Amino acid sequence: MNLLEQTIERIQPQDPESRAQARARLEQLTMPHWALGRLMDLAEDLAGMTGTPRPAAARKTVVTMAADHGVTAEGVSKYPAEVTPQMVLNFVNGGAGINAMARTVGATVVVVDMGVAADLGEPASAGRIIAKKIGPGTQNIAQGPAMTHEQALLCIEAGIEIAHDLAGSTDVYGTGDMGIGNTTPSAAIAAVFTGLTPAQVTGRGTGIDDDMFDHKIQVIKKALEVNRPDPADGMDVLAKIGGFEIGGIAGLILGAASLRKPVLVDGFISTAGALIAHALAPDSACNMIAAHRSVERGHAAMHQRLCKEPLLDLNFRLGEGTGAALAMPLVEAAARLLTDVSTFEDASVSKAE
Amino acid sequence: MNLLEQTIERIQPQDPESRAQARARLEQLTMPHWALGRLMDLAEDLAGMTGTPRPAAARKTVVTMAADHGVTAEGVSKYPAEVTPQMVLNFVNGGAGINAMARTVGATVVVVDMGVAADLGEPASAGRIIAKKIGPGTQNIAQGPAMTHEQALLCIEAGIEIAHDLAGSTDVYGTGDMGIGNTTPSAAIAAVFTGLTPAQVTGRGTGIDDDMFDHKIQVIKKALEVNRPDPADGMDVLAKIGGFEIGGIAGLILGAASLRKPVLVDGFISTAGALIAHALAPDSACNMIAAHRSVERGHAAMHQRLCKEPLLDLNFRLGEGTGAALAMPLVEAAARLLTDVSTFEDASVSKAE
Repeated sequence: MNLLEQTIERIQPQDPESRAQARARLEQLTMPHWALGRLMDLAEDLAGMTGTPRPAAARKTVVTMAADHGVTAEGVSKYPAEVTPQMVLNFVNGGAGINAMARTVGATVVVVDMGVAADLGEPASAGRIIAKKIGPGTQNIAQGPAMTHEQALLCIEAGIEIAHDLAGSTDVYGTGDMGIGNTTPSAAIAAVFTGLTPAQVTGRGTGIDDDMFDHKIQVIKKALEVNRPDPADGMDVLAKIGGFEIGGIAGLILGAASLRKPVLVDGFISTAGALIAHALAPDSACNMIAAHRSVERGHAAMHQRLCKEPLLDLNFRLGEGTGAALAMPLVEAAARLLTDVSTFEDASVSKAE
Repeated sequence: MNLLEQTIERIQPQDPESRAQARARLEQLTMPHWALGRLMDLAEDLAGMTGTPRPAAARKTVVTMAADHGVTAEGVSKYPAEVTPQMVLNFVNGGAGINAMARTVGATVVVVDMGVAADLGEPASAGRIIAKKIGPGTQNIAQGPAMTHEQALLCIEAGIEIAHDLAGSTDVYGTGDMGIGNTTPSAAIAAVFTGLTPAQVTGRGTGIDDDMFDHKIQVIKKALEVNRPDPADGMDVLAKIGGFEIGGIAGLILGAASLRKPVLVDGFISTAGALIAHALAPDSACNMIAAHRSVERGHAAMHQRLCKEPLLDLNFRLGEGTGAALAMPLVEAAARLLTDVSTFEDASVSKAE
C-alpha cells in the first residue's frame, strides 16, 4: 500500500461523540443560546474533526505551494511566468501579502517548490524553501495531459509528507498557492467536478481584459476536449488538467485529514485542490474549512460541491494563502469558546426564565 | 464650550491626501491590482481616518459598556435584569465570550459601568471596572423618557473621556455592550433614524418566543408614541429612548473620531450608539468601521443609514464587543498592507504585460 492509499484509509468522518460533548458545553456557556452563531458551529465542527471536545487551534501554519503551468504558452495570464519564482523569493524574504497576513495572525508561512520552472538558488539550497519539485512546470493542458499519473501521485504524496513533517508544530493548517496561469487549470477542475461549463466557472484571474478572458474560456474548453478527464477519478483529473501545486494542496488536505487536524482551504486554486482531495477521499471534506469566497467566478459553485459555506467574503483574488491566514483567528476563537468561556453554573449567572 | 461641543468641533472628514498616498502605495504592491479587495479599501480608509499613509493598528482595546434598562419592567427579555451585573463580573473575571475573543486577537477589554442597577462591589471599588454610573438603570421608555437631557450629556461625555483616557495605549477602539433589555431601546433608535417601523427593525434579542416578540414590538411603538423623539436631534433621541451604555458608546465613537483613530462598531446596540454619534456629528461616521452584521432584524438597515458594509457576517447576536474583537485582525492586516508588503520595484517582481 502506498502513502496515498495508507492516508486515505486513515481518513474518517467527524467523531459524533466529541461533537456531542462540545455541543453540550456550548449550550451551557454564559450567553444566549448559540449567540455566536457560525463560530459555535465551527467549534462543534472542530471537535468532530479532531476527535476531542477541547480542540487545539493555537499553532497555525500556512503552506504556500508554488508551481508553473505549461498552459501559459496559450496566453491566459497578464503576468509573465517569471513572476512565479520572483514571488517565491518575495515569500521567503517576507515581503508578500501572505507574509503580512500571517504576521497579523501569528501564523508560520512554509513555502514549497512543487514545480517552479526556474532554479530558486540559495533559498532552495539552504532549505528556506521546501524542495518538492516534480518538474519544471506542467505541460500545456490545451495540447495534452498536464503531467503523468506517476507525477500526479508524486505531488499528492509530497503534500501528505509536508502535512506529516509539520504536524508536531501545527494545530491548524492553511493552504496557499502561487503559480502564474493557475486559475486556468483550476477553472478546468471546477468545471469537471461541478458539471458547469467553462464559461460558468472561469474568472479573470490576475485581471485580464475581455478578449483575453474569452480566449481563456476557449483554452479551458479545449483542455477538457483534448483530455476528457474522468470526474469519478481524482487522480485522472489531476494528471490531465491539474498543476503540481494543486496536487500538493490536495495532498496537504488529505494529510491533515488523516492526522485529524483542521485545514483552512484558501481561494480558487486551493479549492480546486480540495475538489481533487474530495474526489480521492470524500471524508476529507469533513476536515476542510472554507476560508473565504473569492471574486473568481466559479468559486461559489466549488464550495457548493463541497457543501461548504466560507467564513469570509472580502473580494479577495490573490491566493498565496491570504484568505486562509485571515480566517485563522476565527478558528482559534471557535476553539477558545470550548476552553475559555464559563458556563452559567461556573460563573453563577442566572439562566433564561 | 462643553466637552461634547469641543469634541464635535474637532471631528473632521477623512484626509484626502493620506488616502491618496495610501492608494498610490497599494497600487504598487506585489499582487494583481487591488487583489485583496475590501482589505485594501479598508487600508485606504484607515489612512484617511488617521491622517497618515502608514496608520498604526497594533494596539487594540474593546470597551464594553454595561447598563440596565427600566423597560425590562414591560417583560421584553427572557433573562432577568440581575444578569447585567452577573455578566459584568464575568467580564472582569475573564470568563465571557468577549474575553475569549479578545485573547484570540490580542486586544485589551475595558469594562465600564455606565448605569448598572446594582452595586458591583470589589471589582468596581478596586478600579477593575471603570465607574461612570449615570444612574441605576434608565426609566421605562414605554412610560416616559429614559433619562434627562443632563444625563444624556453625562453619558456621552463619559464615553469621550474614556476614549481620551485610553488613547495612549490604543490604535483601534472597539465598542461593546451589556445590558438586559437593551435591544428594545436600540430597535427604537433604529426605527427613528431609518424611518422604518418597529416591526421592521425589531429582533428577538436573547431569543424570545413569538408572543413576547409581538409584545416587544408593541412596547417599542408605545415608547415612540409616548416620547416622540426628534431624529434631527441626537441628544433628544438618546434622552427619550436610549440607554446609558448606548450614550457611552456614542461618546466613545465621537471621542475616537476626534482623536483621528478608527473605531470598530460591534452589533445592534453598538450601532444604535453609532447612529446617535452620527446624528450629533455626521463626520464621525468617517472613522467608524462596521465590524459585523448581526442576525438582529434591523441591523442591515442601520448599516445602510451609515453607508457602511460590515466586514463579517457570522450570525452573531451576543454583543459585548465580540464582533468588534474578531474584526480587529482585519484592521491590523489592512494597516500592515501599507507597512509590510513590498512593491514591484522593491522586490524586483515583473509587472503585468
